[in-house]
Amino acid sequence: MLYHVRMDVRIPHDLDPDVRDDTIAREKAYAQELQRAGKWPHLWRIAGEYANFSVFDVESHDELHQILSGLPLFPYMDVQVTPLAKHPSDINN
Amino acid sequence: MLYHVRMDVRIPHDLDPDVRDDTIAREKAYAQELQRAGKWPHLWRIAGEYANFSVFDVESHDELHQILSGLPLFPYMDVQVTPLAKHPSDINN
Amino acid sequence: MLYHVRMDVRIPHDLDPDVRDDTIAREKAYAQELQRAGKWPHLWRIAGEYANFSVFDVESHDELHQILSGLPLFPYMDVQVTPLAKHPSDINN
Amino acid sequence: MLYHVRMDVRIPHDLDPDVRDDTIAREKAYAQELQRAGKWPHLWRIAGEYANFSVFDVESHDELHQILSGLPLFPYMDVQVTPLAKHPSDINN
Amino acid sequence: MLYHVRMDVRIPHDLDPDVRDDTIAREKAYAQELQRAGKWPHLWRIAGEYANFSVFDVESHDELHQILSGLPLFPYMDVQVTPLAKHPSDINN
Amino acid sequence: MLYHVRMDVRIPHDLDPDVRDDTIAREKAYAQELQRAGKWPHLWRIAGEYANFSVFDVESHDELHQILSGLPLFPYMDVQVTPLAKHPSDINN
Amino acid sequence: MLYHVRMDVRIPHDLDPDVRDDTIAREKAYAQELQRAGKWPHLWRIAGEYANFSVFDVESHDELHQILSGLPLFPYMDVQVTPLAKHPSDINN
Amino acid sequence: MLYHVRMDVRIPHDLDPDVRDDTIAREKAYAQELQRAGKWPHLWRIAGEYANFSVFDVESHDELHQILSGLPLFPYMDVQVTPLAKHPSDINN
Amino acid sequence: MLYHVRMDVRIPHDLDPDVRDDTIAREKAYAQELQRAGKWPHLWRIAGEYANFSVFDVESHDELHQILSGLPLFPYMDVQVTPLAKHPSDINN
Amino acid sequence: MLYHVRMDVRIPHDLDPDVRDDTIAREKAYAQELQRAGKWPHLWRIAGEYANFSVFDVESHDELHQILSGLPLFPYMDVQVTPLAKHPSDINN
Repeated sequence: MLYHVRMDVRIPHDLDPDVRDDTIAREKAYAQELQRAGKWPHLWRIAGEYANFSVFDVESHDELHQILSGLPLFPYMDVQVTPLAKHPSDINN
Repeated sequence: MLYHVRMDVRIPHDLDPDVRDDTIAREKAYAQELQRAGKWPHLWRIAGEYANFSVFDVESHDELHQILSGLPLFPYMDVQVTPLAKHPSDINN
Repeated sequence: MLYHVRMDVRIPHDLDPDVRDDTIAREKAYAQELQRAGKWPHLWRIAGEYANFSVFDVESHDELHQILSGLPLFPYMDVQVTPLAKHPSDINN
Repeated sequence: MLYHVRMDVRIPHDLDPDVRDDTIAREKAYAQELQRAGKWPHLWRIAGEYANFSVFDVESHDELHQILSGLPLFPYMDVQVTPLAKHPSDINN
Repeated sequence: MLYHVRMDVRIPHDLDPDVRDDTIAREKAYAQELQRAGKWPHLWRIAGEYANFSVFDVESHDELHQILSGLPLFPYMDVQVTPLAKHPSDINN
Repeated sequence: MLYHVRMDVRIPHDLDPDVRDDTIAREKAYAQELQRAGKWPHLWRIAGEYANFSVFDVESHDELHQILSGLPLFPYMDVQVTPLAKHPSDINN
Repeated sequence: MLYHVRMDVRIPHDLDPDVRDDTIAREKAYAQELQRAGKWPHLWRIAGEYANFSVFDVESHDELHQILSGLPLFPYMDVQVTPLAKHPSDINN
Repeated sequence: MLYHVRMDVRIPHDLDPDVRDDTIAREKAYAQELQRAGKWPHLWRIAGEYANFSVFDVESHDELHQILSGLPLFPYMDVQVTPLAKHPSDINN
Repeated sequence: MLYHVRMDVRIPHDLDPDVRDDTIAREKAYAQELQRAGKWPHLWRIAGEYANFSVFDVESHDELHQILSGLPLFPYMDVQVTPLAKHPSDINN
Repeated sequence: MLYHVRMDVRIPHDLDPDVRDDTIAREKAYAQELQRAGKWPHLWRIAGEYANFSVFDVESHDELHQILSGLPLFPYMDVQVTPLAKHPSDINN
């Protein structure tokens, strides 16, 4: 099932720089592992913002929450989830 | 170039039913033609709402505006456009 | 899977009274049929408003959208869907 | 009487980690005690967010406030309470 | 139990003037009957707006909803309910 | 003259605990003195929130501002003032 | 006492043109009479909007409400009232 | 002096089509006349919306308001004006 | 030319008290100097808030920005500027 | 292609003053270099705010994001991007 997710990252300016760099590096590895597993088929940067629009393809709400709450940057993110249904005008349906 | 678009449809309840049905039918044909042309690669229904999230792949802001303002339902829509850049963690980049 | 849904009903004051009464009667029958089928386990009135909080238990986003868009009052509703995951402090998990 | 409650948790990033862990542990014990007592019949995680939708079943506004303000995480929460009435289409009424 | 209620009245400009006048007259009678019964202890006009702040004193959420949804102007109102608890600094507690 | 006031208290989590406790104690004494003087006839806790709805009865805007800005918790509050007029349906008018 | 008032005028497009013109003419006469009486010392147009910022100087909330609700355009206005106190840096205090 | 202006056009769907077409034609002529006079140096369409961002170069707030309130589409527009000052990093200053 | 300005002051609670006191003292002197120069004809406290409504009378947007950005409290303020035009019902026009 | 950008700068009050001054100096140099290269044709200060409206003229969303995310003040900014299309009433089209 598909979920549309918007993530806005707000890292506190006084976070320890090493913690910050390490968190961002782990975030990237985590995101790429999920993409390779087919769970995170779309990941786009919102131009001009430290934010992304993503589409996830997972089995359940629980799997989605497990993935999102496991993001290394999760404590510094605002996340908004929207479930996606098939559109009647989609030529693939 | 990719654009993320949210469309919310609000058809007035006192619109002539024939105009309404004809507009919706033309909307569907128009949307499918653009999908077949590769201009509208993603079209998802927002679950529970008369709304969609879409991704467009066009040459310019002008082409995008021409397409969106040509939607038969455009007069009854709220449309919000967000330009999408490549994400540094996207494995396809 | 569980979905939290808020519905706000805004019937236009100039809707034909017979259409209105018929729509509300069909809404009630439809809602009760879905409750009996186990698809709509919770339905609460928000005190003081023509609105409700509901919980749906369905197989997929598509089934949820089919049910919600089939509500006789759907054209007059604002609907907001939130997917619900298990809570780690829930004693039933 | 039933109350719908949304809780959003925002723990400051510079809170002492021991205080944080202890607070979260006490929150879980407190929440489970109230569930066992029948005061907190529903507790759902909002997918993708450090937030929950809950339903409380208590005697009065005062009892509800006593419970909520006693949550160990209360100082770090935004809480929104909505009183729930019976819905005329609820098959249990 | 006490409930704080804000009501904003928005009567459509094209409502039949006789219906309008009759509805307003019935609203006044209804409001005064509830005040005399002790159910509606405070009713204040918000200066400059067609709106009021009220306090209701009723047995339950259901009684409150029955009263509010029975207001003759209810179809033209936005209503917002807030449950009130005792304040620890209130000298009457 | 009557004023409706909403106060939301947001004490910073890193405020010195002694300062905090002392401020809250002074706030309570101050609030009770004003109630006894008849200046603050209503004080209700908003259920589930560190906030209150109050009604003040004072001579002028200046007196109201002097009272509110003198609250020991004022530096940590969001305050919203609404002047109240007589309601034509109030049976006491 | 001084009150700051913002008025936004939203005349329905299908209002009878004669009613509209007559209402606007009466509004102007009413506003000028109040200015001459010293009740409405400041009246400014918000550049680019059918709206104004005003300052009223009246005896009480009730007098203010009587004046504002008597505006011929009142049924088509959004009105927002803010009570003004003396500023400690005002050289006239 | 420069003013940034955002205009959102919302033409009612039940406006007479001839009135509508005539208004839009007059709007275009009016806008082009002001551009030729140097009063309206920038006019951009917001992609995907019936809206524009504009910059006006006029003598005073009064001249700006006279121009904007004279727009044939003004009754159907939401307009938001922002005064622009020189930026210290602008290489033309 | 006249500008309506709303200023909301939000001084961080952990600002050095001496810096704070000095800043507020300089703010007052600065504000009074501008009033005496006729640049700041109106300055009102918003009752109950650490905020003011002001009217400035200056030559240009640049002069206004120079004045406002020079306020000692400017780094801790939210400022909102609205250009004011003559109102057609103002008896002074 | 043209993009409208609004930037709001919010520098934390406890940022090291040297870091702050250095960042602002580098921001200015960076902005002026982009103006000279023709990438940043318009840069206006929003009167009264630490914010600007800008227009960028770049090849793609990716180039825009690269430029904006490279701003020395980017970590302290809220940025909002709007793609601009040609307006049918623009006399230059």
